[in-house]
Amino acid sequence: MNASPDVRQQIERTPPLHPRGEPRHSPIAGAVLTNADVDHVAGLLTLREGQSLSVYATGRVHQVLSANSIFNVLEAERVERLALPIEQDVALQLPGNRSAGISVTAFPVPGKVALWLEDLSAGPDFGTEAEDTVGLKVADTATGHAFFYVPGCAAMPADLAQRLTGASLVFFDGTTWTDDEMRAAGVGAKTGRRMGHMSMSGPDGSIAAFAGLGVRRRVFIHINNTNPVLLRDSPERRQAEAAGWEIAEDGLEIVL
Amino acid sequence: MNASPDVRQQIERTPPLHPRGEPRHSPIAGAVLTNADVDHVAGLLTLREGQSLSVYATGRVHQVLSANSIFNVLEAERVERLALPIEQDVALQLPGNRSAGISVTAFPVPGKVALWLEDLSAGPDFGTEAEDTVGLKVADTATGHAFFYVPGCAAMPADLAQRLTGASLVFFDGTTWTDDEMRAAGVGAKTGRRMGHMSMSGPDGSIAAFAGLGVRRRVFIHINNTNPVLLRDSPERRQAEAAGWEIAEDGLEIVL
Repeated sequence: MNASPDVRQQIERTPPLHPRGEPRHSPIAGAVLTNADVDHVAGLLTLREGQSLSVYATGRVHQVLSANSIFNVLEAERVERLALPIEQDVALQLPGNRSAGISVTAFPVPGKVALWLEDLSAGPDFGTEAEDTVGLKVADTATGHAFFYVPGCAAMPADLAQRLTGASLVFFDGTTWTDDEMRAAGVGAKTGRRMGHMSMSGPDGSIAAFAGLGVRRRVFIHINNTNPVLLRDSPERRQAEAAGWEIAEDGLEIVL
Repeated sequence: MNASPDVRQQIERTPPLHPRGEPRHSPIAGAVLTNADVDHVAGLLTLREGQSLSVYATGRVHQVLSANSIFNVLEAERVERLALPIEQDVALQLPGNRSAGISVTAFPVPGKVALWLEDLSAGPDFGTEAEDTVGLKVADTATGHAFFYVPGCAAMPADLAQRLTGASLVFFDGTTWTDDEMRAAGVGAKTGRRMGHMSMSGPDGSIAAFAGLGVRRRVFIHINNTNPVLLRDSPERRQAEAAGWEIAEDGLEIVL
């Protein structure tokens, strides 16, 4: 899920179980989950059954997968469920204990428990815990080149800003342009904040939050279909690009 | 899930919550589940969130949905989970208690529990129960025109043969051509029978089983990508068509 183009390239260097060109080959040898929302975990159900796969997630997200037996389609003998402890560099393993040449460090970011796991009796945070949403620092272990991948983030606290300062590349939560755009478009009642996302625009938005961080490349990902930044000719697109942001698109490839 | 073109046409006659032309409109107002295999239930996770929907299933399949909290993305206030009792005509309801003009009768067919629910300690049937796999008789309540929809079926016992005899239209399980074709193609170890499907060819196959039933139109559905019948120029395709079968394809529309 959510593998960046770089990660995909790295993984393809080591041959997977069904070699390229053979029936049912998939170049995806692993998945790193940043939370348990349905758009982050349901894709596991459509990955090739019968191919080896490594699935990394926090303890909290693994609990959710374990509690939902439908994820048994990922056969235990072929799919390893591996720990992604917070604030530790993890050298990603390919199936068969081979190294992927990639290390990942997960760090908590402001977010919330997945919508479908909300505990309405738990008060305004719906039972959210620290490991519900993480960002990733992904590094090439050979070159040390690294990028950050943060598809869900509800705010930019000082420690997160400090972590990202001076990074050469950050993929960041671009769900909404304004907090209430889903309601304005008549497609839903929830605000971006209610779903655990900060908006791009405004004084509390991500564009403003990144303004002083000196991040070389900033790429918005995880963009909702109500976000006008998706339209190439929109004023919002011009505004984001003028602030130095790129808008991700299918097939995007970036070489660090 | 698995709605036939006819069902889809019927459902579109009554306006759904998000009217056609409005953002996030979906013409799908309901789903009838014939078992809990991942290819029959995972699609529920990608149906529009926030649109009213009626989900019909046997008690056994509803238990499976309830035991997997990920299906809470189908919000309880918008998605009704309705009973599909065996051998009873059920007049399908659209959201808001409106009639769909369709009645459905579920009947048990030889099959098995979904692969991901197998209880290996339960012996050779893996804990399969009668309600794990059903076929459907779908009727237009105005005209009485009806068809059968049987996407998974492991054998043709006498009572099922009798039920289908003389039908004007049957959609039937076309997973495999030969029982071991997945192994022969090198894409998996399981046979068709192991997955709860009878093959098309051979003396125990579906083509032979239907030969004397006098069914006017026979359409294979649920066809695995190893089945050579999918190739328009294959000998297997010619053989199926010579026996009076049609091979379903995306966009197929049939008027009864």
